[in-house]
Amino acid sequence: MPVTAKKYVFAERFVGEPKLSDFKLVEEELPQLKENEVLAEALFLSVDPYMRAYVDRLQIGQVMIGGQVAKVLDSKNPNYKVGDNIFGQLGWRTHTVFNPSTDANLLPPYVLPSFGELPLSLAIGALGMPGNTAYFGFLEICEPKIGETVVVSGAAGAVGSLVGQIAKIKGCTVIGIAGTDDKCNWLKAELGFDHVINYKTEDIAKSLHAAAPNGVDCYFDNVGGEMSSIVLSQMNLFGRVSCCGSISSYNYDSNDRPKVSVIQPSMVFKQLKMEGFIVNRWNNRWMEGIRQMLKWIKDGKIKCNETFTEGFDNIPTAFIEMLQGKNVGKAVVKV
Amino acid sequence: MPVTAKKYVFAERFVGEPKLSDFKLVEEELPQLKENEVLAEALFLSVDPYMRAYVDRLQIGQVMIGGQVAKVLDSKNPNYKVGDNIFGQLGWRTHTVFNPSTDANLLPPYVLPSFGELPLSLAIGALGMPGNTAYFGFLEICEPKIGETVVVSGAAGAVGSLVGQIAKIKGCTVIGIAGTDDKCNWLKAELGFDHVINYKTEDIAKSLHAAAPNGVDCYFDNVGGEMSSIVLSQMNLFGRVSCCGSISSYNYDSNDRPKVSVIQPSMVFKQLKMEGFIVNRWNNRWMEGIRQMLKWIKDGKIKCNETFTEGFDNIPTAFIEMLQGKNVGKAVVKV
Repeated sequence: MPVTAKKYVFAERFVGEPKLSDFKLVEEELPQLKENEVLAEALFLSVDPYMRAYVDRLQIGQVMIGGQVAKVLDSKNPNYKVGDNIFGQLGWRTHTVFNPSTDANLLPPYVLPSFGELPLSLAIGALGMPGNTAYFGFLEICEPKIGETVVVSGAAGAVGSLVGQIAKIKGCTVIGIAGTDDKCNWLKAELGFDHVINYKTEDIAKSLHAAAPNGVDCYFDNVGGEMSSIVLSQMNLFGRVSCCGSISSYNYDSNDRPKVSVIQPSMVFKQLKMEGFIVNRWNNRWMEGIRQMLKWIKDGKIKCNETFTEGFDNIPTAFIEMLQGKNVGKAVVKV
Repeated sequence: MPVTAKKYVFAERFVGEPKLSDFKLVEEELPQLKENEVLAEALFLSVDPYMRAYVDRLQIGQVMIGGQVAKVLDSKNPNYKVGDNIFGQLGWRTHTVFNPSTDANLLPPYVLPSFGELPLSLAIGALGMPGNTAYFGFLEICEPKIGETVVVSGAAGAVGSLVGQIAKIKGCTVIGIAGTDDKCNWLKAELGFDHVINYKTEDIAKSLHAAAPNGVDCYFDNVGGEMSSIVLSQMNLFGRVSCCGSISSYNYDSNDRPKVSVIQPSMVFKQLKMEGFIVNRWNNRWMEGIRQMLKWIKDGKIKCNETFTEGFDNIPTAFIEMLQGKNVGKAVVKV
């Protein structure tokens, strides 16, 4: 019986903030499975900030990029069995036929390990790409030491909320920067952040100096922009900066980036180290990150929050609202 | 017989570009030598961009900071003999009494190794701090590989002109950015740079794209500012940036730094690594750098140019003109 898939294609180049009309819902009938192919049905789809930036590389009409948790409906591949739950970067689609060995994909779809009692949706959150982004991107680049002071921007997002908790596990003082009082309260009351700064209502420089009178050792940066210039100006000698994202400039054309206070004086005189990364550089250690995050969650050391949007058709809305910062923790679309 | 020293003290806080009236010439009679002390007479004094930034840490009335080549006139210290030529961070002084074991100094004055036929003044240039800044700051942080493309800003300065030549020795394609056609011609014709860009007359982005159509792998940055934002936006995946200086912003207050295009998008999507440094982090390998630079110079692989100013009293002029970019290669004051 033929399967009809729904998919969202990229319909218009974004100008500033993405709009609903930039996406188009299309139906297509999927072909019969050939040797080594798998048919999977989406259960949970991920919307993440990186998509805003990467969309520039897509052609108009291409399927929107993104990861999903899916269930195998049919398989002609010995590595995937009917009923398996998988994670794959399959795009904004309800149903997908894929061949893991020929499809261009840095991280081929993989069968999820057992999460025990934990929800499957975590496979696109703390037990997936955002979790590994926090785990590797913070620990490998910031190399935090006990007693150090860590600042996290975008602290209430999928990645930032995990970074702060990992920093607490590592014995650091953690300062989170977020955009609403509700997020700030959640970070402090629920996740154990030591200090929080609402960048929309506070003078970041003053609040940061009050929270970190002895300066900042590590900065995990999801946001970029003037906020980052301020944090860098308060860093200590030999501080480390992990550049995970630059959300504050994603809505600007690459030829017309926002102007911010120059950071090179901070880099030189404090001898800072700053490194940008994309999590796929650690693909060969992927399961190490998942296993460690799973253990921390089961041990109660890391808490996860998910903001759900119901219905495949609402992915564009979930994406736009995530970019507007309406999510607390991971933004997830439940099909 | 008592020795009278001349010294320049810091008389007024700089506002924007330093002025002659910001310095004051003072005479003082030096005390008799005590046990372990040394009396040295300056032969060559160094003026360097870092002084513009570091002066903010001085009190009004303190002697201006800086390195010098000096001759030992008298010594009660077994490690320094009368007639020895030394390098020391002794400040803007004609004569100095120092005790190497008690004076606060990260790099105590040291007796120069033999330079053979080469001029002693190189001990404040290619065979001293600027040489080691180029040697360690470029090789250790940029880790250049054969065939890579290297950009150097402040390319005609004491450090930049050496970095470009070291990059050529390492088999790289070298692009220098400088501020006059004369400097650019010198870099290309005399020092063997592959491409040069006059940032005052050219569109840096266009010229850089023409010179490096396949992108930039390493950037040795003396200047900072918008120029650096442009270079970073043309870097390749996993590029390395060594932040040596930020001359373009030294005349601005640290609370009012110039605004430039944000660099975090380049950092993230190209997974760049950027590190600021101060050369004293390699003090324990100091002589390794000097020896290698000496060998390259003797082998004709590195050429040094010095711009001389005559007379101790003209140090402030030499300093101000160096900050205005009037030197080609190392700015040296000959007493």
